[in-house]
Amino acid sequence: MTDTITDTDTEPITFERHPDSYRHWTLKVDADVARLSMAVAVDGGLLGDYELKLNSYDIGVDIELADAIRRIRFEHPDVKVVVIDSAIDGVFCAGANIRMLAAASHSHKVNFCKFTNETRLEIEEASAESGLRFLAAINGACSGGGYEVAMACDHLLLVDDRSSSVSLPEVPLLGVLPGTGGLTRLTDKRHVRRDRADVFATLSEGLQGAQAVEWNLVDEVAPPSSFDAAVLERAAALAATSDRSDDGSAVVLESLDRTVTIDTIDYRFVRADLDRTGRSVSLTVTADAADDWALTAARELDDLLCHLRFNEPQLGTIVLRTAGRADAAVAHTERLLAGADHLARETALLWKRVLSRLDLTARSLIAIVEPGSCCVGVLAEVLLAADRSYMLDGIFEDDDEPLPPATIQLTAASAGAMPMANGITRLESRFWGAPDDVAAAVAAIGDSIDAARANELGLVTSTPDDLDWDDEVRLAVEERASFSPDALTAMEANHRFAGPETMATKIFARLSGWQNWVFIRPNASGPDGALRKYGSGTRPTYDLNRT
Amino acid sequence: MTDTITDTDTEPITFERHPDSYRHWTLKVDADVARLSMAVAVDGGLLGDYELKLNSYDIGVDIELADAIRRIRFEHPDVKVVVIDSAIDGVFCAGANIRMLAAASHSHKVNFCKFTNETRLEIEEASAESGLRFLAAINGACSGGGYEVAMACDHLLLVDDRSSSVSLPEVPLLGVLPGTGGLTRLTDKRHVRRDRADVFATLSEGLQGAQAVEWNLVDEVAPPSSFDAAVLERAAALAATSDRSDDGSAVVLESLDRTVTIDTIDYRFVRADLDRTGRSVSLTVTADAADDWALTAARELDDLLCHLRFNEPQLGTIVLRTAGRADAAVAHTERLLAGADHLARETALLWKRVLSRLDLTARSLIAIVEPGSCCVGVLAEVLLAADRSYMLDGIFEDDDEPLPPATIQLTAASAGAMPMANGITRLESRFWGAPDDVAAAVAAIGDSIDAARANELGLVTSTPDDLDWDDEVRLAVEERASFSPDALTAMEANHRFAGPETMATKIFARLSGWQNWVFIRPNASGPDGALRKYGSGTRPTYDLNRT
Repeated sequence: MTDTITDTDTEPITFERHPDSYRHWTLKVDADVARLSMAVAVDGGLLGDYELKLNSYDIGVDIELADAIRRIRFEHPDVKVVVIDSAIDGVFCAGANIRMLAAASHSHKVNFCKFTNETRLEIEEASAESGLRFLAAINGACSGGGYEVAMACDHLLLVDDRSSSVSLPEVPLLGVLPGTGGLTRLTDKRHVRRDRADVFATLSEGLQGAQAVEWNLVDEVAPPSSFDAAVLERAAALAATSDRSDDGSAVVLESLDRTVTIDTIDYRFVRADLDRTGRSVSLTVTADAADDWALTAARELDDLLCHLRFNEPQLGTIVLRTAGRADAAVAHTERLLAGADHLARETALLWKRVLSRLDLTARSLIAIVEPGSCCVGVLAEVLLAADRSYMLDGIFEDDDEPLPPATIQLTAASAGAMPMANGITRLESRFWGAPDDVAAAVAAIGDSIDAARANELGLVTSTPDDLDWDDEVRLAVEERASFSPDALTAMEANHRFAGPETMATKIFARLSGWQNWVFIRPNASGPDGALRKYGSGTRPTYDLNRT
Repeated sequence: MTDTITDTDTEPITFERHPDSYRHWTLKVDADVARLSMAVAVDGGLLGDYELKLNSYDIGVDIELADAIRRIRFEHPDVKVVVIDSAIDGVFCAGANIRMLAAASHSHKVNFCKFTNETRLEIEEASAESGLRFLAAINGACSGGGYEVAMACDHLLLVDDRSSSVSLPEVPLLGVLPGTGGLTRLTDKRHVRRDRADVFATLSEGLQGAQAVEWNLVDEVAPPSSFDAAVLERAAALAATSDRSDDGSAVVLESLDRTVTIDTIDYRFVRADLDRTGRSVSLTVTADAADDWALTAARELDDLLCHLRFNEPQLGTIVLRTAGRADAAVAHTERLLAGADHLARETALLWKRVLSRLDLTARSLIAIVEPGSCCVGVLAEVLLAADRSYMLDGIFEDDDEPLPPATIQLTAASAGAMPMANGITRLESRFWGAPDDVAAAVAAIGDSIDAARANELGLVTSTPDDLDWDDEVRLAVEERASFSPDALTAMEANHRFAGPETMATKIFARLSGWQNWVFIRPNASGPDGALRKYGSGTRPTYDLNRT
């Protein structure tokens, strides 16, 4: 397979955007309605030499969409409904760009799908948790990933112009899946009967008009002449179901303060030290009393995780560390959990999503708790997200002025406010099937938990003393680097999600697991596969064995 | 990738076995204890030139295990506990044979894992549904797939001889997953804390003795001197928890009556007509009044599904048909559901498992209901397992003596007795999120449902009349053959399982999805991948990108 786009031979992808410089979207706020209009710049591809025709998208388009949603949540508490439409005549959105997919590395394809899935799921989470309704105003052809964006919305209104359809043409035309939640949402969210889902997902031209409504593919249709009026009417009706209100606590999301060198990425409260030889990165989040700590640290951690996923694929292990003031971490966490204002509530939800992004990051996560650590409040969730953890029992004897032994301090943040994608807490996932152990950990909320007690409570994997510490931690990180990166990704994806599955985990596991497999098969990505042959006039050549 | 074992260049794999000719197991029944001892014939590999050392296994070994469990269920109702041990000194079981895996085609690896998973899950289902307890008497080294067999048992007793351990060395040594339920059972069944699961599954030498008990990897240990006594004692204790009893209705499983030609496979009640050009197979189950119909038809259907999976990978579509006497299908189904004796109960459970095997078969399933069909009772579940279905509205006008229009007749078999792997019925999966539609179908139990009403109830996808019938059915089958086999497999695996997930679906979707992906990656299966390099003295070369 010849990859013409890899993760490393292009400029690093950045994840900060601002509406003033969006290339693909316009965001207009009018009273309680925000209109997010897609008009993808054909020459605006972020990664290579492909044309983003017909509102097809690459990662750059989705980064802007994610930015817009986040800004509406934080900066526009007066907005109650977001209308997503297209500014291009006759086309709503054609989905992920096929030339981009055909040229992208396997790693990029998988990370692209994961990020876009996270963005779609945030649309649903914003509706469920923040009362922000989404209306897909499908004013033109809506196919593939375009229909998957629409399905993430609360309400789908399709123009009934005898030509615009919704469709999922991936299977018949491209030999891949509608992998951005499409298949899962058909059956599990929109309750499309499975045989109809089968027909629909193999029908490249899709369905339109009354039949699209009958099959519940869309919620309503409106003729072109009254489409705009129908959008306004429906937006108003959706707004009426929202309890969102502006309590004056909105903040503007300022640019992040980030300094990058060859082996460090330094934000105000988050820092990464890259060890390219050892293929690991040390990631430290520092608690601070600054008023904006909770919001800024979450945004910085999020930015860093996206950066590492896309731009540093060979750094296979993230060593998670914390630092700073415990009292600050407690105070910030309590403020978030009290949720007294819009800002606190949205910041708590942002932490929940960032921690979920961490759970879903395909890197080994090893947490370190040592003198100077601040494994407290929301930062204790960073510890609990790790695949394994090491806590020093005692002090570093040889230090000139040894810091006191580390402790862990759990807060209510670990007892329900920050659920994982599987809908349960990290403690419940950790102690799956052992509710007494969950209860014991919850009963320890507020305590300063030293290494011995952390071990007893099962909160950490290992508690070496000063004598064994360096070797044990070093060997754990070195060992990880010696294993197959694929096997690690797959093992961790299983161990992290004990117990129940949700629509989100079905998307990230069942659907994406199969999509990852399909992507790597020659039938999709090989020189004669469907992704490469699409639009060439030549049919793909398939290995006909069913597996 | 050079595959030296494919599905088609060897003799077809057969799935019927008999204890008298087992090559790898001995089955001894003594009062209420069956002992199933593994002693894999080193030269008994089914597929190629590899040595099955140290009780490592290939599909042939597992086919015997599955046969033994089925025979114990049907032929030995007096047995209350099955002891699985090894007849080889110092070794319990080394898991799947690595040379076999390294040489097998991707398709064979995936089907091998699926079949072995079905066998492990049957052990658990036999315990839950038939009161048949399983004791893993781990009298030697137990690694990889060997430990996965053990974990499927109710109780794991490990010899404490300071050398025998349990281990999952797949990730550190082979670059693949413990994919036969290993990772899922660690966290979801045995409730091993996720960080301990991480440590354990990266520790090639595994754990033994007291630590294996402390981590709940095994249930107890016993020293070599008292191991045999401990096995007997534990077997007696497990037997005491069983309510199994012999009511005289046991049957001996006779050889199936099967005639194979180049394009037909003909059993007494099941028949397959292969269309190699069109890459489909027409599969007909015929209801009959014969006393043994329910048991024999289920065994025949099961045998045929296994045959098609392993030996006919290019026949991508199974066209499901039924025939025969409706009254017989109703009577047999009612007898199964009444469960008045051991035989009826076990036969109903066998139907449940065979229908589940159908749900998990990676082929497009298209059901046909036409004059002469017998879509009744358990055979209605065959219809509901299909990805889509066509029912003729009316009669074939041109027939000399047209048969009357087909009807569907649901029984209580569709309302709970035959759950899918996701724990809900096929009706509930079909109408996920639409409980009124489930209720309407259940209310129609006993009715003769014609095409118009079947359409109204949503039981079939399409109801063409005589004029359109041939074209519509033909086009559906032809279209399927034109799509990427991979994309179809992945799409169907998603659409078939709406709603909840269970440990079984986590194994078949989350775990197996990732394993399929790992298997196809060069890090595992490439010429320098871990599977090929194992035991060569050369370390594998990994693509270091994390995805």
